[in-house]
Amino acid sequence: MPTWQELVADKQQRQKAAIPKEWLITLPPGSQLDVTNVPRTCGLLSSEELEITETKDVAILLDKLASGAWSSVDVTRAYYKRAIVAQQVTNCLTEIFVERALARAAECDKYLKENGKPIGPLHGLPISLKDQVCLKGLETTMGYVSWIGEYAERDATLAVILYEAGAVPFVRTNVPQTLMWPETFNNVFGRTVNPHNRNLTCGGSSGGEGALIGMKGSPLGVGSDIGGSIRIPSAFNGLYGLRPSYNRIPYAGSRNSMEGQDSVPSVLGPISNSLSGLRVFMKAVIGLKPWTKDPLAIRKTWDEESYQLKEHGDGKDLCFAILWDNGVTIPTPPIRRALEMTKKALEAQGIKSGNVGVVDWPAFDYGDLCLTLGQIWASGSQGDYAATVAKTGEPIIQTMALDGVSSGNEWSSGAALESQSAYGLWQIQKKRAQIRKVHLDLWESTGSLTGTGRPVDAIIAPVSPSASAPHGMNRDANYTMAWNGLDYPACVFPVSKVDPTLDVKQPRDKFLSPTDEFIYNLYDPEVWKNAPTSLQLVGRTQEDEAVLAMTEIVDKALKA
Amino acid sequence: MPTWQELVADKQQRQKAAIPKEWLITLPPGSQLDVTNVPRTCGLLSSEELEITETKDVAILLDKLASGAWSSVDVTRAYYKRAIVAQQVTNCLTEIFVERALARAAECDKYLKENGKPIGPLHGLPISLKDQVCLKGLETTMGYVSWIGEYAERDATLAVILYEAGAVPFVRTNVPQTLMWPETFNNVFGRTVNPHNRNLTCGGSSGGEGALIGMKGSPLGVGSDIGGSIRIPSAFNGLYGLRPSYNRIPYAGSRNSMEGQDSVPSVLGPISNSLSGLRVFMKAVIGLKPWTKDPLAIRKTWDEESYQLKEHGDGKDLCFAILWDNGVTIPTPPIRRALEMTKKALEAQGIKSGNVGVVDWPAFDYGDLCLTLGQIWASGSQGDYAATVAKTGEPIIQTMALDGVSSGNEWSSGAALESQSAYGLWQIQKKRAQIRKVHLDLWESTGSLTGTGRPVDAIIAPVSPSASAPHGMNRDANYTMAWNGLDYPACVFPVSKVDPTLDVKQPRDKFLSPTDEFIYNLYDPEVWKNAPTSLQLVGRTQEDEAVLAMTEIVDKALKA
Repeated sequence: MPTWQELVADKQQRQKAAIPKEWLITLPPGSQLDVTNVPRTCGLLSSEELEITETKDVAILLDKLASGAWSSVDVTRAYYKRAIVAQQVTNCLTEIFVERALARAAECDKYLKENGKPIGPLHGLPISLKDQVCLKGLETTMGYVSWIGEYAERDATLAVILYEAGAVPFVRTNVPQTLMWPETFNNVFGRTVNPHNRNLTCGGSSGGEGALIGMKGSPLGVGSDIGGSIRIPSAFNGLYGLRPSYNRIPYAGSRNSMEGQDSVPSVLGPISNSLSGLRVFMKAVIGLKPWTKDPLAIRKTWDEESYQLKEHGDGKDLCFAILWDNGVTIPTPPIRRALEMTKKALEAQGIKSGNVGVVDWPAFDYGDLCLTLGQIWASGSQGDYAATVAKTGEPIIQTMALDGVSSGNEWSSGAALESQSAYGLWQIQKKRAQIRKVHLDLWESTGSLTGTGRPVDAIIAPVSPSASAPHGMNRDANYTMAWNGLDYPACVFPVSKVDPTLDVKQPRDKFLSPTDEFIYNLYDPEVWKNAPTSLQLVGRTQEDEAVLAMTEIVDKALKA
Repeated sequence: MPTWQELVADKQQRQKAAIPKEWLITLPPGSQLDVTNVPRTCGLLSSEELEITETKDVAILLDKLASGAWSSVDVTRAYYKRAIVAQQVTNCLTEIFVERALARAAECDKYLKENGKPIGPLHGLPISLKDQVCLKGLETTMGYVSWIGEYAERDATLAVILYEAGAVPFVRTNVPQTLMWPETFNNVFGRTVNPHNRNLTCGGSSGGEGALIGMKGSPLGVGSDIGGSIRIPSAFNGLYGLRPSYNRIPYAGSRNSMEGQDSVPSVLGPISNSLSGLRVFMKAVIGLKPWTKDPLAIRKTWDEESYQLKEHGDGKDLCFAILWDNGVTIPTPPIRRALEMTKKALEAQGIKSGNVGVVDWPAFDYGDLCLTLGQIWASGSQGDYAATVAKTGEPIIQTMALDGVSSGNEWSSGAALESQSAYGLWQIQKKRAQIRKVHLDLWESTGSLTGTGRPVDAIIAPVSPSASAPHGMNRDANYTMAWNGLDYPACVFPVSKVDPTLDVKQPRDKFLSPTDEFIYNLYDPEVWKNAPTSLQLVGRTQEDEAVLAMTEIVDKALKA
């Protein structure tokens, strides 16, 4: 039996060998923090390939693919080359399978030629997958040395559906070990960095997706989110990302952490440079009836009425509420500025059209809710991790700090919390259900704030108190976990970037929590320079379609 | 602090005092086993009250109430009198609150008179509630001595919605201690018996509802079902009963056993003497958007397309599959006969219209699925029960045998199974999710059996291997638990009654399991005489509406 280090060396060697030699570039210096322009400057991509990969709007890409204006082989090759560039500057990929992806793309092209119509709504589109979504014949290590060498016997249900929709799965992307970190580092593939500022984390756990799509190395990616894992990397890389409600996107056949934990399920969802990317993904996957393949998937078709905001006055007199802080941490200046910019943009729309209001979201004990979630996960997580790594003896990662030395104050999904009996777990889950009821009643009560009689239509909130963080220093996921705990769909949208001249550190001497103080002390505008700032729009349980529609309204206001 | 026995004596005394003296009847002799005719013979109900309470079709009752042909006060009083008769011969009630119910009925009548329209879709209709659905100001002991004296501060969410729909909650009904028995007996109110044959159990855990509605003492009742608790009493009392999918009917604010157990949730659902009762209940409750009041309720309106069987060829060429046995127990002769009658009735329809097929459902390891469910519940149930009874020291019931002596072979939701760590529980839950996937794939694969290309439209299955059982002897809930484990909606419909001349015991010397042998040995046609025989129609997850529609088709075929 090889040691875990030998297994890693072999896996890394195989990964490197999967990269076509001619796609290796001259690396920028390590001191170059912003590498988002490298695909343009490295010379590997033709001008057509640059045009393809910089077509942010996925709906346009799909039109060109469906009409045959661009072939799937050309589009897939262009994105693959860009993904390989992204890999070389951010280390975002896990599985690389160029020939297989191009063969699938050729199949799509052939189908279109022979049938005169696309295979499905995602015809010919390259899609990147977080290293959980199994593809037959490939390994899915999910950051675990112990899973090296386990080749999938079948496609994950989501992959089956993506194939049915005509898509071209083309790379898989990096994750943190256990998935339960808001950064991306594991013993198999190492660390993924933020392409906007490589001194900062790309976030996690769908951090490989975040860095890859931040580099425009994929038009559309699939992440997963149990406490923020789609939204944090989306925010830290300036992307759109949707955490759908529980069980709208099929999870069957994908690997996961803490399997059997049924109370706060992880969800799969899309990340993209465009909102249209999120919408076409949701519509395509739900449209192919995932409940016929995944017993946990909700039997609920794409709800066009919800997307048309029928329950929200047909989109008239919308009222958004701003969550300025969650009672645990005060957002750092760049995030505060993003909230203010969004408020102003919406008010400007409101003044123009008379139909948008903005109010303050009332106080709620989100810290208690998030603690409860942490306790649910901690009740069995150590057993889960220990059983998984036992096969090879690889260490369970205790810190993501660059020096590997724990500060004793790590974020680790409640590692400091206790394992539980099943009965003990039920008591925590009972408390969490009670919190959900209190929060629902709070939301229902906001009709008095809006002026429409209707409760607040959506909450606009930070995704994190910070716009990314130096490696190993991302310690707070309360702004995302809360909505997982309540099962509220939430869509991340980019607002701005950290500008040291605008996002000046202000003196503070009172703190909401030790985490609040830690984050305040850590913030340095120069260190954060150029990091994207993003927010999330949060809707009600199973209002995924309405959340997308309302995010489109906010996004348009910001761009206006 | 009073002893638990003193608390019980006081509670029973208060219950008796709540019965109007003039509603006490001369009791039939204890040897009279079938008491369903007592409401007709006892002289308490007027002929109009008999007419009202023997109007099986709830849709007709609702029409008369909405038009004012019958006042809610008259209807409520009629059902209340009949319920009190039922109480005296079957011991089916817990909370009795005549004046409060009549006052609510008067309110409904007043509303109709003043507004010229009904309050809502259940206007004026008396509805009985299992002793879990809290009503403000009343106790909800749920069979626990420890909960005597705990008065609800608010209505359960379902009660709030029933009031909005215009209903008149008028009695609450008995349950077994812990709810986790397929019979009905507890330390507070004692045992409820089957009105068709008082030597037999009314089933459980919604056994009070079963006996009450079996006596036509309520037009529509609410039960709950985690492993068969709506369906077993429905079947044993010759009624219609629907186990809806998880979280379609709001559970918030109702008391429950094993709260916080999130993996195999109990569901609330309707029991009635008519299928129209089930349909109006589902349509009314779902129509009032329970997700605005219960955070766990699915955001899914009444799906009329599903009810019109759109996904089932618009109701054309339906193909039903019969589950002759589940691999654990062979149904006793009366149940076998019910399956055969149903098959013949459907085939007769098929011959007539050419559009109904019947096939055999393929073998599946339902025993393993049910064992998994038992393990999930057992992982924390002993802790839950112990914590609940600790307050008063009442004993946890170990047997429901008449002599109170356990045979060592009791049904008790896996009491013989082990408590677990949270991590251990997750492993069981993981296995259960895998079983769900295998069963879904099996169902999807049945397209080859049907002749339509479409998978089997619904399964027709026993509810229990027996048509009720002598007290303490109902030991098998595998036929119901399986569908809870898979989250399949299932609707019980009556077929026939045990007839000793038809349901002769046949010699058998091979058995599928010790339970199979126990049930075979127990069966005696003379003991079971007159017990209703019923079956269930089982559909796919969240196809509640289609399940109702298909049960209507089967019911009509049986009546043709």
